[in-house]
Amino acid sequence: MVSIAPTNWPRSELTKEDREPRKFVTEHGVDLRKLPNIVDMSSESITRNVVAINSSGSDDRMKFLFKSLITHLHAFVRETSLTTEEWMTAIQFLTETGKKCTDIRQEFILLSDTLGVSTLVDTINNAKPPGATEATVLGPFYTEDAHEVKNGDSIASEGKGEYMFVEGTVVDMLGNPIPGAIIDTWETDGFGQYDTQYDVRDEPECRGRLRSAEDGSYAFRAVLPVSYPIPDDGPVGRMIKKLGRHPYRPAHLHIRIEAPGFDTLVTALYFKGDPYLTSDAVFGVRSSLILDPELVTDTSVTLSRGFKEAKPHTYVHQDFILAKPEESEDARRVLRAVTKGSVGVNGGHF
Amino acid sequence: MVSIAPTNWPRSELTKEDREPRKFVTEHGVDLRKLPNIVDMSSESITRNVVAINSSGSDDRMKFLFKSLITHLHAFVRETSLTTEEWMTAIQFLTETGKKCTDIRQEFILLSDTLGVSTLVDTINNAKPPGATEATVLGPFYTEDAHEVKNGDSIASEGKGEYMFVEGTVVDMLGNPIPGAIIDTWETDGFGQYDTQYDVRDEPECRGRLRSAEDGSYAFRAVLPVSYPIPDDGPVGRMIKKLGRHPYRPAHLHIRIEAPGFDTLVTALYFKGDPYLTSDAVFGVRSSLILDPELVTDTSVTLSRGFKEAKPHTYVHQDFILAKPEESEDARRVLRAVTKGSVGVNGGHF
Repeated sequence: MVSIAPTNWPRSELTKEDREPRKFVTEHGVDLRKLPNIVDMSSESITRNVVAINSSGSDDRMKFLFKSLITHLHAFVRETSLTTEEWMTAIQFLTETGKKCTDIRQEFILLSDTLGVSTLVDTINNAKPPGATEATVLGPFYTEDAHEVKNGDSIASEGKGEYMFVEGTVVDMLGNPIPGAIIDTWETDGFGQYDTQYDVRDEPECRGRLRSAEDGSYAFRAVLPVSYPIPDDGPVGRMIKKLGRHPYRPAHLHIRIEAPGFDTLVTALYFKGDPYLTSDAVFGVRSSLILDPELVTDTSVTLSRGFKEAKPHTYVHQDFILAKPEESEDARRVLRAVTKGSVGVNGGHF
Repeated sequence: MVSIAPTNWPRSELTKEDREPRKFVTEHGVDLRKLPNIVDMSSESITRNVVAINSSGSDDRMKFLFKSLITHLHAFVRETSLTTEEWMTAIQFLTETGKKCTDIRQEFILLSDTLGVSTLVDTINNAKPPGATEATVLGPFYTEDAHEVKNGDSIASEGKGEYMFVEGTVVDMLGNPIPGAIIDTWETDGFGQYDTQYDVRDEPECRGRLRSAEDGSYAFRAVLPVSYPIPDDGPVGRMIKKLGRHPYRPAHLHIRIEAPGFDTLVTALYFKGDPYLTSDAVFGVRSSLILDPELVTDTSVTLSRGFKEAKPHTYVHQDFILAKPEESEDARRVLRAVTKGSVGVNGGHF
């Protein structure tokens, strides 16, 4: 194995023979003899040439991913006859998006969310069988430190928003109750903020963890979550605005349910009547997850459910149907087969 | 126009009527009545839904770009059944790539270069008619401050590398000489570094600006450039390595020629025998730009060409054929028509 130093060609002191193309292994361990000849790029040949040279590695999955990525990226440039100025705008946008990321702000995930990529990845990876409660995106506001609350207790302090009472049952695909399921729930307060978005956060607020009872039932007091804008003071916010879109998510209550022997469910409940339901900035809404909440004006019921003040409250009933891992895996297998067959883009090439 | 505050829905003090979906214009000026209904994403419907809501703006070119972008981005995710872990790897890679960018390091351009996107954009935007000298990528090392040198003078100080003499003529498509063309040229020294890559740079080195003579001729002394690795200590370098590729560019001499009435030519000359010619890390090589340099061992010629020491030198002869703007525009128009017709990817949808 002869190493190539960057300065070893062509040197005038070398003989003519030395200056012929040589067969080398670089100090990176790349055998130049095994690389495809990628000279002379045209707009026609460059894609197969880039794919070819990216196929030199040993990671088959990575090669497959890059083949698809390069093919689509190049097709995008060709189909749009992307101008040099547009290319530079994209470079600057991506750079700024990276610069905007901090420990508590992930602008690239926001970009993925607002382009529908996060929901698509979620749909493919967390598909549930027909009949099971549908999943939707986890979002950036889940935390591990939620307080344990008893069935029927509150996840929100007094004064954090309008009263909401949530109850239902956790069951399997046959309708059998699932006792002891761990239910995590989190939501905005009545001001449209998660607890983690405040400068000061003494302890978890508007979030809690409870367990389903022997009969699978659960209940908790909460506040009515409200619609809110995603962080729109960065490059993604500017993009959204230029596209004629608004940055709002409809109000929703996050739910995550974990039970032994079942596929963990990450989902959220939405509310009929929210003006942003049909134009969610991150494409998370599913029809099956939209509730029609009941406005309970009998304040004696409010008090009997444990709320402090005799005010009207919103009542929500939702059962959760959990699938077993093998049932979900079947659903994902079918989905993968269907989506691969239905893309209509370069179908035969991959 | 009624504004929507994020907290205005649903409020328990509102009447039932108030809680029905309302027709609103947001404070962002987005008329919710005009947005498509994008509820209920499936892996099938999400692409057309994202495209639909991105079509609300007034910028037709932006809408077209995003339609193509979203379609290809989603097709990539579907075709690969991208896993949640792979998605997170991509998010982290992009974030790190943004963080790596500084005033003197552009990691996203490097990513574009190594994925063949820069060359593809260059090919589409800088196509030349058949017979004209081909263009290739400008690269990141061009500077405005190169010294003016006289025809036949040197662009490199003594000791910066092995001697190279370059000469030729600048002509139009009919072979007529172009006098007074401004020729910018820049290159690595014999250590594979551009002057801007050194910590200290007192003045421009291995770069110069000269003008073609009345008969279109030009000549200058330089050093033999050498192959060098692109910056590979960041995320793009790691990617290259994982793909089984090396980071080298073959040795090359950059040339930029500007002349009134002609399309500015940005190109580079490569050298036969370079081991990296067929696997350039940034896909810049074109067959028509590969020279077969002559090794001149008669040292009296070396001295007569103005070099200081009686050593052998490399001799390179290259004519540059410049196209007029309208000739290049014709070539680009043909190329755009050809590439759009030939992509074979989602051809009918755009």
